[in-house]
Amino acid sequence: MDNKKKGIILLSGGLDSVTTLYYAKSRGYDLTALIFDYNQRHRKEVQAARRIAEINGIKYHLAKIDLSFTQSSLTNRDIKVGLNRDLKSKEIPLTYVSGRNIIFLSYAFSLAESIKAKKIFIGAHIHDYSGYPDCRPEFLFAFNQAVSLGLKNKRIKIVVPLIDKDKRSIIKLGLSLGVPFEDTWSCYRGQRVPCLECDSCRFRVEAFAELGMLDPALVKKKK
Amino acid sequence: MDNKKKGIILLSGGLDSVTTLYYAKSRGYDLTALIFDYNQRHRKEVQAARRIAEINGIKYHLAKIDLSFTQSSLTNRDIKVGLNRDLKSKEIPLTYVSGRNIIFLSYAFSLAESIKAKKIFIGAHIHDYSGYPDCRPEFLFAFNQAVSLGLKNKRIKIVVPLIDKDKRSIIKLGLSLGVPFEDTWSCYRGQRVPCLECDSCRFRVEAFAELGMLDPALVKKKK
Repeated sequence: MDNKKKGIILLSGGLDSVTTLYYAKSRGYDLTALIFDYNQRHRKEVQAARRIAEINGIKYHLAKIDLSFTQSSLTNRDIKVGLNRDLKSKEIPLTYVSGRNIIFLSYAFSLAESIKAKKIFIGAHIHDYSGYPDCRPEFLFAFNQAVSLGLKNKRIKIVVPLIDKDKRSIIKLGLSLGVPFEDTWSCYRGQRVPCLECDSCRFRVEAFAELGMLDPALVKKKK
Repeated sequence: MDNKKKGIILLSGGLDSVTTLYYAKSRGYDLTALIFDYNQRHRKEVQAARRIAEINGIKYHLAKIDLSFTQSSLTNRDIKVGLNRDLKSKEIPLTYVSGRNIIFLSYAFSLAESIKAKKIFIGAHIHDYSGYPDCRPEFLFAFNQAVSLGLKNKRIKIVVPLIDKDKRSIIKLGLSLGVPFEDTWSCYRGQRVPCLECDSCRFRVEAFAELGMLDPALVKKKK
């Protein structure tokens, strides 16, 4: 396989990263998934990510990291996940994990250089999560430039195919690519079924509803 | 304690990071050490780092990370540590671990933001290890700028007090600050006593010799 077509996919198991994986695959990339277990509240997403990698016959690297010191509702069980927030708010939500994408991307660069991959795919986008500073294009661009100075291989690039898309457009893209949405996991609370109250559930369910669909993950759970 | 004086020290247990710790302490910083166990060949340095933190009554966070995918003599036991290399060579040595400082610093920023520290001290310098791209000042500066875009707190700064110093100057600084060099560990091979053949040993022993001293770590081992 041509090394130019080797890529890393940062795979959380959620709708965005899984759609990004299918996009990269459709473009002919030989992917290695990088999955993080940081003892997140919604650790269930790790199972979803592994399953998606397995369905696609993709190698994956599962990295365990300790982020218990961060003050986030996803890493600290004493902080509640905010429910029924204003989804248009520009404030940084309680689910923000300090430096999460910074650490994830750093790992991805290390892995990419090690296995000679030239691209790192990440499902970040500016619409839903404009509140997360580490999803913003200006950060991703500057980070890519800076990290290149610290590596032997200066040409590894972050690719963000969903950057300008809203949730509805992402779902439409995913549908066209055959993404098994029923196998993805987005809910921050990580219980048996999606809570439908956290930001992540609401963005997702509302976008499916706008497309006249019931979220396939809910249909599956109702079986 | 004034938050302005809270700092993180990236502590490997080697001569440079320990001298940096003593420097930061002498400047009145309330430090939290960040120590990495990446199953490095010279994992003995982790013990040294913990001991130094304990001697100084400093809190430390020990982060375990898996870098087994990197192609380095420090992470892959099948690759030998280069011995008796030309220390003036500008080539990247086999001990280079892809993205190591990038990952370490990312973690440090996450921890710093979480505990409200404003400074991250790192013992990088350009003299010994000009071969390591992630020790270069241009990388450190650009990385600091980029990461600030991805964090809530935009004002956390990397501080590199040794940046322009050679090993001899670092040791002189350390001596003036009371660094217990006998408790530091630098040898890449991580056996019972320093090998005196790897780059790290040679830089160190030669610098002590230039100062008319025997490396205290050797004196201790000989007891």
